[in-house]
Amino acid sequence: MDERLERQLAFSLEIDKEKNIFRQTSLSGHGRKENDAEHAWHMAIMAYLFREYANEKVDIARVMLMCLIHDIVEIDAGDTYAYDTERLQSQKEREERAKQRIFSLLPEDQCRELMALFDEFEAYETPESRFAHAMDNLQPLILNHSNEGGDWKEHQVSADQVYRRQEKTKLGSEILYQLTDQLLQENIRKGNLRAREEEE
Amino acid sequence: MDERLERQLAFSLEIDKEKNIFRQTSLSGHGRKENDAEHAWHMAIMAYLFREYANEKVDIARVMLMCLIHDIVEIDAGDTYAYDTERLQSQKEREERAKQRIFSLLPEDQCRELMALFDEFEAYETPESRFAHAMDNLQPLILNHSNEGGDWKEHQVSADQVYRRQEKTKLGSEILYQLTDQLLQENIRKGNLRAREEEE
Repeated sequence: MDERLERQLAFSLEIDKEKNIFRQTSLSGHGRKENDAEHAWHMAIMAYLFREYANEKVDIARVMLMCLIHDIVEIDAGDTYAYDTERLQSQKEREERAKQRIFSLLPEDQCRELMALFDEFEAYETPESRFAHAMDNLQPLILNHSNEGGDWKEHQVSADQVYRRQEKTKLGSEILYQLTDQLLQENIRKGNLRAREEEE
Repeated sequence: MDERLERQLAFSLEIDKEKNIFRQTSLSGHGRKENDAEHAWHMAIMAYLFREYANEKVDIARVMLMCLIHDIVEIDAGDTYAYDTERLQSQKEREERAKQRIFSLLPEDQCRELMALFDEFEAYETPESRFAHAMDNLQPLILNHSNEGGDWKEHQVSADQVYRRQEKTKLGSEILYQLTDQLLQENIRKGNLRAREEEE
């Protein structure tokens, strides 16, 4: 077998492991925790459907691919919960090592391309990466909202913490940030999420 | 909330259920069965990486989106195993009903667009749909190959049956069909898949 094809196959098989990396978000209907592959699939479809709300014009194929691959590094680095301050400190280094190992399975040109796309996502600087991040925030939010904030309750997360993360959605989509704010306020009103005041 | 956004959100939440539709393919490392959302995610990334092997030039964003949505109908219709002749007979009708219900949650323009994309996938007539089908075949094949043909053994599937399905990969990619043939021959040689002769 041709070396190029062999490397593409090795990478394709390796990323299968992403299906075993579980997140802190529960599926709708108070289901089990969701894994990274499912989350990425969901984000990519939502990116396509919601692209009309991006602040800037985006290359939607690029956004979708970014969504699909953005968590591959977690195969080695594990999922870092958005509100786990301790593990967040070592996240960058763990993910950098994982990026090197996993993408290097690919032929050189594809390795370079996907690493650059991953770095672009992380850097938050292009319209595509900002919109992909908006999906990374919105996708778990709609699940958690449908579950009456079960994930927030489980981790005793406060509105301050959630807002700190979710407000970056604004950078990718003002309209989807308005939606986010509306959903968060509803959850605070219903007692699903501890209000900011209680924190102070 | 704006009705359009409301419909887009309703659809986004509905498709979460695809994560509970399990297939007959096991994850690598002799893992649990994989679900439709994971399968679609895996196919979409593979489509991007393997696009150079498509027989005809393809619009890769269209192929990826087709991969991502092609199994949404199974939320209602369930997974139909490729070698389950009885359920295969009612598959078309079950999936048609599901298509109507689920895509109709979307705003009309997006409903029409995704239904058309699903129909295009099913019709096997465009380069994009042929290549997407090649991924639909290759993705479970590489998992099953990595598991020494465990899924074929479990369902007592014969090489004839597998070839009948896999040979359509040729329509999307001659090169990936050569790879398929090579993998199947290796599995027959190792006794992971019953050879054609035994069938006759």
